[in-house]
Amino acid sequence: MIEWIGFDADDTLWHNETLFQLTQDRFARLLDGYCPPAEIQARLHQTQMRNLRELGYGVKAFTLSMVETAIELTGGRIPADDIGTVLDLGREMLRAPVELLDHAAATVEALARRYPLLLITKGDLFHQESKIARSGLSRHFRGVEILSAKGPADYAEVLGRYGVAPASFLMVGNSVRSDVLPVLELGGRAVHVHYPLCWEHEHVPDAELGGRDFPRIRSLAELPPIVDALDRLTTML
Amino acid sequence: MIEWIGFDADDTLWHNETLFQLTQDRFARLLDGYCPPAEIQARLHQTQMRNLRELGYGVKAFTLSMVETAIELTGGRIPADDIGTVLDLGREMLRAPVELLDHAAATVEALARRYPLLLITKGDLFHQESKIARSGLSRHFRGVEILSAKGPADYAEVLGRYGVAPASFLMVGNSVRSDVLPVLELGGRAVHVHYPLCWEHEHVPDAELGGRDFPRIRSLAELPPIVDALDRLTTML
Repeated sequence: MIEWIGFDADDTLWHNETLFQLTQDRFARLLDGYCPPAEIQARLHQTQMRNLRELGYGVKAFTLSMVETAIELTGGRIPADDIGTVLDLGREMLRAPVELLDHAAATVEALARRYPLLLITKGDLFHQESKIARSGLSRHFRGVEILSAKGPADYAEVLGRYGVAPASFLMVGNSVRSDVLPVLELGGRAVHVHYPLCWEHEHVPDAELGGRDFPRIRSLAELPPIVDALDRLTTML
Repeated sequence: MIEWIGFDADDTLWHNETLFQLTQDRFARLLDGYCPPAEIQARLHQTQMRNLRELGYGVKAFTLSMVETAIELTGGRIPADDIGTVLDLGREMLRAPVELLDHAAATVEALARRYPLLLITKGDLFHQESKIARSGLSRHFRGVEILSAKGPADYAEVLGRYGVAPASFLMVGNSVRSDVLPVLELGGRAVHVHYPLCWEHEHVPDAELGGRDFPRIRSLAELPPIVDALDRLTTML
């Protein structure tokens, strides 16, 4: 039986990666004169990966990585005012309105009437709290957990805190790496919601799934019937 | 009766503000040719305060504020490589070893044998988790709560989550604003531990205490007898 449902937030309930991509495009245009756009994107990705262990996820880390990349790529020739523009790009991301995905509000509201819901996200504490507040959805969640990483141990710790058995837990999210695989590993269930853009770091090639299977949907409108079906299936077994 | 004890982390269990001050001094030396040091410090503080609502607390926010201040103060004349040096200053803060305050380890260990302890801190999720892990103290804490703000409502939410009545809770920390006053307001108890440096933003002038009184100690070695005395006092009332 499914007793609790967890939702990822960025790119599951509201748009996020689009904003990162848009900002990367603007960043590449800013450095246009120094370097071809494809190289700028590749170098920015490298810087992000190198900084991940020390800076973690989120807009502030991303902004610091943009500044670092801009200095490196231009060999220190970029004018300080252009670095100021990079800071502005980061600031605009923080200020961007929270745009809910289609059917997010109705699905969360409908499921909240039948299950206790958890919002389980990673990223920057301060910014995530601000987005959750602005999303208008927070009242539907029994708990909000902002984590620095989403591995099996992190989920185990959260579920333990709420007294939820993994077998009765269903996680819903757009990242196979962060929302699906770690929960399956714990013995829980997961539904993957496709989002058109996926941050390279979160991508898991099908070959690495090791045969693990899980429902994949393209819209949150498909979620409530899937939850019903999963629930009936578990009762039958 | 005191049933649970909460500890702040930065400047209560380990040094933190010293590192910020040291970094500010190095930042001021970097901008030496542009501006007198006192003005640099004042402008950096202004930038931090202006950014607080959007960036929150922590080293990443501080680094972004240093970059912004450097560009502003030099009218955009600072070379990009010097901005690279500012990024390095931030990186060194993140990498700095966690230096425990005198008596922190022994006091936490002794009290953990008698009370469930909570670590309640604010700042950057990722960096705080890293410092807690490196402090070697995390095994003594029943729970670790990293908050984006420490007002009465934030404490109420945490205590509610652990089922702790405010009247049975004692908070220990170096910030009158963040560790003492909000807990007193909830009906809990608090002990202030003096730290030689206090971030301007956290300072509360005595005139604003409104007559509220609380034990003030200069070292964590004084804490266990204070806890005993508070406990006896409550039992007698």
